Parts: sequence; C-alpha cells; structure tokens
Amino acid sequence: MPQPPPAEPGMREEEVDTPALLLDLDAFEHNLDSMAALIAPHGVKLRAHAKTHKSPVIALQQMRRGAIGQCVQKVAEAEVLAWGGVPDVMVTNQVWGARKLARLAALARICRVSVCADDAAQVAAIEEAAAAAGVRIPVLVEVDVGAGRCGVPPGPPAVALAARIAASRHLEFGGLQAYQGSAQHIRSPQGRAAAIGAAADMARRTVEQLRQQGLPCPVVGGAGTGTFGLEAASGVYTELQAGSYAFMDADYARNEEAPPFRHALFVLATVMSAAQERIAVVDAGHKALPTDSGLPLVWQRPGVAYAGASDEHGKLVAEDPALRPRLGEKLRLVPGHCDPTVDRFDWYVGVRQGRVECLWPVAARGAMA
Amino acid sequence: MPQPPPAEPGMREEEVDTPALLLDLDAFEHNLDSMAALIAPHGVKLRAHAKTHKSPVIALQQMRRGAIGQCVQKVAEAEVLAWGGVPDVMVTNQVWGARKLARLAALARICRVSVCADDAAQVAAIEEAAAAAGVRIPVLVEVDVGAGRCGVPPGPPAVALAARIAASRHLEFGGLQAYQGSAQHIRSPQGRAAAIGAAADMARRTVEQLRQQGLPCPVVGGAGTGTFGLEAASGVYTELQAGSYAFMDADYARNEEAPPFRHALFVLATVMSAAQERIAVVDAGHKALPTDSGLPLVWQRPGVAYAGASDEHGKLVAEDPALRPRLGEKLRLVPGHCDPTVDRFDWYVGVRQGRVECLWPVAARGAMA
Repeated sequence: MPQPPPAEPGMREEEVDTPALLLDLDAFEHNLDSMAALIAPHGVKLRAHAKTHKSPVIALQQMRRGAIGQCVQKVAEAEVLAWGGVPDVMVTNQVWGARKLARLAALARICRVSVCADDAAQVAAIEEAAAAAGVRIPVLVEVDVGAGRCGVPPGPPAVALAARIAASRHLEFGGLQAYQGSAQHIRSPQGRAAAIGAAADMARRTVEQLRQQGLPCPVVGGAGTGTFGLEAASGVYTELQAGSYAFMDADYARNEEAPPFRHALFVLATVMSAAQERIAVVDAGHKALPTDSGLPLVWQRPGVAYAGASDEHGKLVAEDPALRPRLGEKLRLVPGHCDPTVDRFDWYVGVRQGRVECLWPVAARGAMA
Repeated sequence: MPQPPPAEPGMREEEVDTPALLLDLDAFEHNLDSMAALIAPHGVKLRAHAKTHKSPVIALQQMRRGAIGQCVQKVAEAEVLAWGGVPDVMVTNQVWGARKLARLAALARICRVSVCADDAAQVAAIEEAAAAAGVRIPVLVEVDVGAGRCGVPPGPPAVALAARIAASRHLEFGGLQAYQGSAQHIRSPQGRAAAIGAAADMARRTVEQLRQQGLPCPVVGGAGTGTFGLEAASGVYTELQAGSYAFMDADYARNEEAPPFRHALFVLATVMSAAQERIAVVDAGHKALPTDSGLPLVWQRPGVAYAGASDEHGKLVAEDPALRPRLGEKLRLVPGHCDPTVDRFDWYVGVRQGRVECLWPVAARGAMA
C-alpha cells in the first residue's frame, strides 16, 4: 500500500518526516525554463522523458513550458500519464505481449500514443492490437545508433521495417527512434560529441534512404540530458527526449562541462546515530537512494561525504570530528541517479525557500509492466 | 498507487505478466525448514529479518516454522507487521524523531515491540514516547562489534547505556544488538569466522560486565544469512536475525561455502527486443533488479549472462547466437540482492511446479519512515 505523505503544505522543511523526496520548486522551474531557452534557437521540440519523474503533474508543467508531449519506457507508465490528462505519450521502447499491447491500444482512445519496434513480429502484434481496438497507432523504428542494446541497424534494415509499418492498416510510420543512451555519461565533451556525431550521421543516412523509398520520416527522436545540445544542433533530430534535466543528479554533475541545470531533487534524511566521532548514520540507504550510478552527495556540507549505503543506513564520514552532523540533524542528499530514486517514493514534497508548498504523488511509481 | 497483480492463481508461469516477483514456494518452504533444522542443535532462536520480505504473510509462515518473532529496520515496517498480526517485532535500528517514536509506542498496545539505541538522547526520547503512550518498551543497546556503522563501543560504554535504560521508568533493558553486518559477504569462510569470532568476544565480554553491574542481559542479537552458523555456535548469541535465507540471492551465492539454501526468489522477465545476433533485451532493468550487490543471474540458461542494466532494460549476452533467448521468451532472473529487489514490487507471485498458487502483497514496500 502507498505510504502516507511525510509532510503537509505550510510546514517548514525541518519538520518534514524522513526519508522524503524533496523537490526544490525554484530550481525545478529554473530547469524547465532553461531547457526551453536552450533549445529554442534550434527549432527542435522537447518530448520530456517521464521515466524520470513518473508524474502527470510534472508532465503537464513541462508541457505548459514548451514540451510537446512525454516519453515513457513502459505501458503502465503511459497509462498513468494518459489517465492524468497528458495528451501525447510515446513509448520509447519495445512492448511485447498481447495483454500489454491491448492496454496500449486502449489508451489510443484518450490520447495520442506511439510506440517503437525493432522486429517485424512486434509490428504484426501491434497491428493486431490496434485492429482489435479499432484505433490507429504511430510506430517508430528504433535504430541502433551506437548503444548496442535495442534497435535494428541503420540504413536498409530500418527502411524495410518502416515500410512494413507503413503497409499495416492500423499503423502509421511514426519516424525513427535514434537514442544514443551510452553517450549520456561519457565524461569528456569531445567523447560525447563524437558519439552523437556518429549517431546523427546514421540517422541522417537512414532518413535519406527512407525518402528515396517514398517514406517521409516525420520524427527523429533521441537525446538525453548529457547530450541534448548536440542533437539539437545536428539538423537531423527533431524531438529531444531528455528527462533528468528537470532534476539533475550527482552522476550528470560528474560530466565535464556538465549540463547547465540546478540540483532540484533531494532526499531529505535524518541522522539517527552518531556514536563514533567522525561517523553519522542517516536513515536513507540504498533502498532510498539507489546506487546504480554511484553514491549520493551531501548537499552544502563541505568535509562530509556519503561513504557507504546499506539497505536503510547511509554512512556519512566527516573529515574532522567538528564537522560531523549531529544526532537528529536533517540533511539534503543529492541522488546519484534521479530516475530510480524518484521511483522509490510515493510522494514529492515540493519546497520553496524552506517551506513545503505542495505534495504531488509519484503516480507511476513501480509502473514496470 | 499500487500496481495491479501480474497474475491470478491457477495460471501457468508462462502466462504471468512481466516483470513479476516470483516466489518458488517449494524452495521457499525448504529454506524455512532447513534453517530450523540447522539452528536447532544450538538452542538459539530465530528472529527473522522482515526487511528482506516486507510481508506479514511470510512473517507468520516463518513463525509457524519456528521463528520467535521478526526484525525490521524502520517503524513503518513494524506497523505493517503489527497490523498484519505479527506478535513480536524488534526494530534493529535507531529511531529518531517524536512522530516516529509516537508511532512506535502506539504499536506496543497491539504487539511486543522493542528497539535499539546507541545514545542517551535516544533513550530519553523513547522514554518520553513510552510514557506519553502509557506503555513499556524493551530497548536493546546496539554495540559496534566491527561493522563501524552504528553502535556504542563494547564494554563500559554499552554497560552505561544499559544502566540508563534500566533506570528509565517506561523502558526495560532488552539486551545487546551485536550485528556484524560487514562480515556477511566476506567471501572466505576463514574471514567470516575471524570476524564473527571477534564480534562474539566483544559481546561476551560486555555481557559479563553487565552481569557484574547487576544487569542481566536477556538477549544477544545479531547474525545474517552469511554467518548465522558461527553466531549459533558461539555460545553467546541468543537470537539470530537472518533474512535472506528464505530467498537467497546471487550475492550470497558468491560466498565460498555459500549458505545452504535454494534460490526461491526470481524476477520473471520477457525478451522484448532481440535485434542483434547475440543480444536479447529483457523488460527488467535496475528499477526491477537493483544492482547495489551486483547484476542478476540468468536462471538455468548456460551461456547467457545478464551483462548490463539500465532503468528498464536488461541486456543479456549469449556466448553463441544459437543460445540467444528469442523474442517473447520469458526467463527467470536471480536478483543480485533480494532485499531491495522485493521492495521494488507490489506483489509476490507464489508458484509451485509451474503454476501460480497464490498472490501475496509486498505490504511494507516503500516503508522507509
């Protein structure tokens, strides 16, 4: 069952029960506005990735500030957004299974929903689900532009799959999904530029081959928070799929020439034990702060490092005993990776200048189906 | 909101929607019986750790097979167990904050609830909460026996804190919490034996000093799945706090002379993309299978390895194209670490010999307060 909210509007931040997922609203709004300003000169569109935030409330704020729609990875996430009023949702992933595809097709009655494919069998299954539901679904061809995960090779295999989609009665060819995920955390800007340059070349060549086959490509989608400026300037990408830009995290902050966004997302934690002279233990371990992309940072506490996570313990080590946080003290932690961290909580606690302003449900928490 | 169950009783395992948390009931029951048999000769008690399973259903099964109670790390977990009928719950952790302590004290009216402390200020706060609620709470002194996290030093500091508890009107001295967490995954049996030998010596010395001060020590608690045989044979530990033994996981399986339990917990996943000749991508990434203790294993598929996790993608690599799982195939994955994996799901799907037998809620999922 969902956990009760850890705060109420009007409380001071120090009164919030912990661990809690804090959203600094000033920083968050700054990030949305910054992204809009950064991509405006390029004429590309933002389709923000909801796997980061899992919230129709945040999706609609992004759309009020310029995003044209949302991306998700799972059908269950698409449902939560659609049910929450988001009008345009793209599943940037393959979907397999008749139950899932029936759920996806059902959504096409209340919003625009599109999905990716990298195999003719998937296309046939989506066609069957769309036909059964009496809807029409745009399907994008996922192309492997260097990540080595999903996606057909660029060029002729992509064109062949696009033709198959275009020939399906209840589908339309939605474009190319050309996300280079493994480039997002290449630390050097030169390395990121090389990876995205190569990806853009593959996408460009495929778009040209599609055109030669009489298949106009309405969308080329990709990009994340680590590289979106490169895709925006490429001249071939038309939709950017960044998600973390809204929140930032410790891992993106480690990129050289890191993305120009503020840390807006924190886990508020309490020191529950301080029995050793340089160690303080907080009530947020890796169940609150997943460590897939490294440990969290302690916010604005020089000389104090989050040195180890167990299930429900976070071990902070102070360089000097005088710097050790005291028993009962509440500290903000910057997550190592914002996406899985959000997915650990039932509630956002929106704070502004030290006060709780709002509570928003993490409505698609755990929506993995 | 909670996710809908991915299955119904009577289904075949292949029909379960994915990703799903599977519990192989034969293996699970074998593990409970094995633990009971292994510790019986030593006369120690099992107080199984519910941070692993998060379920009153499983807690009560453990108690029907010999466990005397349950451990938890958080007050919110204790609530879920108490509300589900578990009669004896110990918080093996420090708790800070008046709201949390009031919730803990409220539970003392419906079950036996105990908690740990490693600071006099915590003892004063628990006393205040117990007095306000009109209840009596056993408090154990947590002793640092080598993990370097929480706990007062063994010997005189532990005795002093025990005396303070014993002198508090609404508290009773519940014993010593002497968990050596960092020993659980020392790979060599010699290394584990050395660590637990040292921990047991510290606990034994402290128990003797307590006795000299007229403070009998009713409980010495500790041990996990990696070392419980050592604590059981130590002659000083009286309650074992293993949790993972019920399920096992890939990390415990990597210990030399690994714990003698069967893999009972799996994430069932579907191959959603197989566009490259040696790669199959499943719908369970690190949001389903946290990687804090390493990647999952692919169950009974020689030549296929889970090679990389992103949020919602698990990349399987086959040694040979002929071994690559096919699109749509469902595979069992053994979690790297059972505790955080369980906490990602809303439902256990209990299976026996290929059929779904039951659904149990992961009732304390996300209970971090």
